[in-house]
Amino acid sequence: MSNVTPLKWVNGQLLILDQRLLPGKVKWITARNVEKVAVAIEELAVRGAPAIGIAAGYGVAIAAGAKRSSHDSVRAAIERLRITRPTGFNLFWALKRMGDCLDGSSKFSATRLVKEAKAIHKEDADACLQMGKFGAELIADGESVLTYCNTGALATGGIGTALGVIRTGYKAKKVRGVYACETRPVGQGARLTVWECVQEKIPVTLICDNMVAALMSARKVQRVFVGADRITRNGDTSNKIGTCGVAMLAHQFGIPFHVVAPSSTFDPQLASGAEIKIEERAANEILRATAGLEKLAGVKVWNPAFDVTPAKYITSIITERGVHRPPYGFAK
Amino acid sequence: MSNVTPLKWVNGQLLILDQRLLPGKVKWITARNVEKVAVAIEELAVRGAPAIGIAAGYGVAIAAGAKRSSHDSVRAAIERLRITRPTGFNLFWALKRMGDCLDGSSKFSATRLVKEAKAIHKEDADACLQMGKFGAELIADGESVLTYCNTGALATGGIGTALGVIRTGYKAKKVRGVYACETRPVGQGARLTVWECVQEKIPVTLICDNMVAALMSARKVQRVFVGADRITRNGDTSNKIGTCGVAMLAHQFGIPFHVVAPSSTFDPQLASGAEIKIEERAANEILRATAGLEKLAGVKVWNPAFDVTPAKYITSIITERGVHRPPYGFAK
Repeated sequence: MSNVTPLKWVNGQLLILDQRLLPGKVKWITARNVEKVAVAIEELAVRGAPAIGIAAGYGVAIAAGAKRSSHDSVRAAIERLRITRPTGFNLFWALKRMGDCLDGSSKFSATRLVKEAKAIHKEDADACLQMGKFGAELIADGESVLTYCNTGALATGGIGTALGVIRTGYKAKKVRGVYACETRPVGQGARLTVWECVQEKIPVTLICDNMVAALMSARKVQRVFVGADRITRNGDTSNKIGTCGVAMLAHQFGIPFHVVAPSSTFDPQLASGAEIKIEERAANEILRATAGLEKLAGVKVWNPAFDVTPAKYITSIITERGVHRPPYGFAK
Repeated sequence: MSNVTPLKWVNGQLLILDQRLLPGKVKWITARNVEKVAVAIEELAVRGAPAIGIAAGYGVAIAAGAKRSSHDSVRAAIERLRITRPTGFNLFWALKRMGDCLDGSSKFSATRLVKEAKAIHKEDADACLQMGKFGAELIADGESVLTYCNTGALATGGIGTALGVIRTGYKAKKVRGVYACETRPVGQGARLTVWECVQEKIPVTLICDNMVAALMSARKVQRVFVGADRITRNGDTSNKIGTCGVAMLAHQFGIPFHVVAPSSTFDPQLASGAEIKIEERAANEILRATAGLEKLAGVKVWNPAFDVTPAKYITSIITERGVHRPPYGFAK
């Protein structure tokens, strides 16, 4: 188990590690109501598809534990959390579970909802361990690996998805080291993956997102592990913006590209990636990195937060159930 | 002709626009000796392969015009400038021209060397116009184009190479707009290309470097134009880090990818890109973008300033002489 955790449930409140401040500061947000959880998700204090799902579960639990809570107030909390972010599926999966728990009995019970939120958290931690085990088996001794965005303890309820595999592979003395992409514009790689690796003494080398082709051309990496925000029935996968480019380059260089995600990431309603709604975020998220740019009139920005990697570029998809290989055909 | 210029020769001194401060500030460095020119090149106050060549020519001219100058002192200036940056070829091409001019007569003449430096500058401006004309002919009406790094007036002695083509195509009402990649870590796209486009009212949309695959997948661009720092006999091209990835993605999406560079970029000594020396720059150039990262112990960085695009991914190479198409076989 990792010492790093993005979420702590303490006395009916949710403590949320403010990931926007890492690695410079470690600061916790205390969420006493559902709105605070919702805003923390919207503003990226907590991020990572599985962690968002877990936070949403606890957000519903907070609403359930509030004074004068009812079936209706909890249902309203679920609806509030549903509109925080559109692309990652674990959010909707967790809210459906909480909704089913709410509706599953004619007698309203806050205790049962808290228990369900904790179960979602615990199951994700267990899934991470399983994914770590299955993924690490794919790694050959002495490999250097590339990862993208942050898919570690900070993104999940456990040791992480892709970074959980890398952790497990490093402990098994198979992984020599990790290359982490910065992951513009939010910097989840530069800020979070680097920080997590330093905490656990995994050798980490930071590169800019535009160095992937040079890295692969120089044969500095033998394998790529990334996470996922939503996986459709045909294996198409949405993940942090830039993932598709990494996958296509890995494909051209003949380097295996693995997606690691719990089964809560699978959206049985969608046949292919073309149906995934991609969140677009504000221009200043990009502009503010460059001095003078926000004041320059007439600059447009395109800022999609995710892209879709077609299944044909994915060597395998690793879940807590095992290693899935193409052709993918996940159940409806 | 563009109103933007990175270099002005005034009364035997070189004024260098400090491009590190753009777009926030417009500030000029006055270089009265060769060392100041050399440091401006090393520290990226002036950058862009053709502009570096021009600056180096003027640096030699400054040495020639100094008190007690001699054949030996000018030769020493040439050697000083030669070790400023390793990858871009125009620097070495310009220094060879200045050296040939120095050695071309038994009588030392500062006037002749100043004239040669001005000729290098003027010829580059003329080459830009020619490239603009040849390149713009390739563009179909209504195309949106993608460019990388900065290859405009700021990088050359004229309207630019790739951005010169785009300027010309925009004036001809063929180009609808430009997508500019940020170009981490130095931000030549976000800072310089965006700024130049705003000056000339060319519609520009900024994206992060990791958004290229999503952009191409969404069919938002129909063509790519980039510059070059060195081109080998087989057409392999070194350019700003990230270019190779853009080329490989364009190739997979079936989008034409054009390199635009004056013939002073061609290195006749090198058979292929494998022989190009790639400059690696300091770790803090990447780390400083992320609060808290420089203080985090144990973070390694890989920071190559250029990569090599294999000729097979290049649709055509546009020079002042015309449009060269594969198979490339440039003269030794």
